[in-house]
Amino acid sequence: MRKTIAVYVENKYGVLARISGLFMRRGFNIDSLTVGETEDPDFSRVTVTMDADDNILNQVVNQLNKLYNVKKVKVLERGSSTERELLLLKLANTADKRSDIMAACEIYNAKIIDYSRRTISIEVTGDSDKIQSFVELMIPNGIIEMCRTGVVALERGDKVLAEN
Amino acid sequence: MRKTIAVYVENKYGVLARISGLFMRRGFNIDSLTVGETEDPDFSRVTVTMDADDNILNQVVNQLNKLYNVKKVKVLERGSSTERELLLLKLANTADKRSDIMAACEIYNAKIIDYSRRTISIEVTGDSDKIQSFVELMIPNGIIEMCRTGVVALERGDKVLAEN
Repeated sequence: MRKTIAVYVENKYGVLARISGLFMRRGFNIDSLTVGETEDPDFSRVTVTMDADDNILNQVVNQLNKLYNVKKVKVLERGSSTERELLLLKLANTADKRSDIMAACEIYNAKIIDYSRRTISIEVTGDSDKIQSFVELMIPNGIIEMCRTGVVALERGDKVLAEN
Repeated sequence: MRKTIAVYVENKYGVLARISGLFMRRGFNIDSLTVGETEDPDFSRVTVTMDADDNILNQVVNQLNKLYNVKKVKVLERGSSTERELLLLKLANTADKRSDIMAACEIYNAKIIDYSRRTISIEVTGDSDKIQSFVELMIPNGIIEMCRTGVVALERGDKVLAEN
């Protein structure tokens, strides 16, 4: 089952290389990884999603906790957190497909971010299930290029990764 | 100046660790890094943003091109590509700040994704400048937690990273 792990790390030289090196050495296979700024300029937040059973997940959490500059590791449960992903998609712009694409964009609340004679580029956000179904819906329309950020997630309510 | 580098890589064991290891060993400082699926299930796309002059940028591109499993490296120019980033923000929910938050969300086309007695969580997408100004606007409202995906980018028109 897919798991989401949030890691709060000091903004120090090489911390990302240590984290991705850990996954490589141990043979853990990552679905997505994002790293970005947080509310505190001294810290970054890494979000990793991976298919793992509870045994593997415990190993990952234990290993991450041992890494230098890692301050907090938490597995975010789907029900008690909100997950989002951003997808950019470049599609073929042809007269016969255009209205299908436009209709799907309206339903999925997607935005056209570039439009040329031969291509339409789209931005859409949502949880991974929504993103995945949008991608599948667009396959017959001719996906030229695709770029996904990977998952970011916050716990619901007033829980905070850095504190709990 | 901030540069955006798109890297098209084979979906193989350890490629992310090799890329982040390269940045670490050479002392290149990354602003953001994302890795996600592409239109081809055998390939992933890594997007890196960093402050670099042309000399450093050339070194980075040359070193990346030498890495095993790296198929294509391209510096994306701001004018000829569309960049997007996704931000999740958790703010304090207080009676005196709520209308300020709601007004800013409307202007920035941001979505409320969680609402509790003490917190409001928001999703917003845009280029890094828009995201940065939204964050700065929200600081006085009390940022409890923040999570950014980092930048993803597509070239405008019909150029495709995997081909050009």
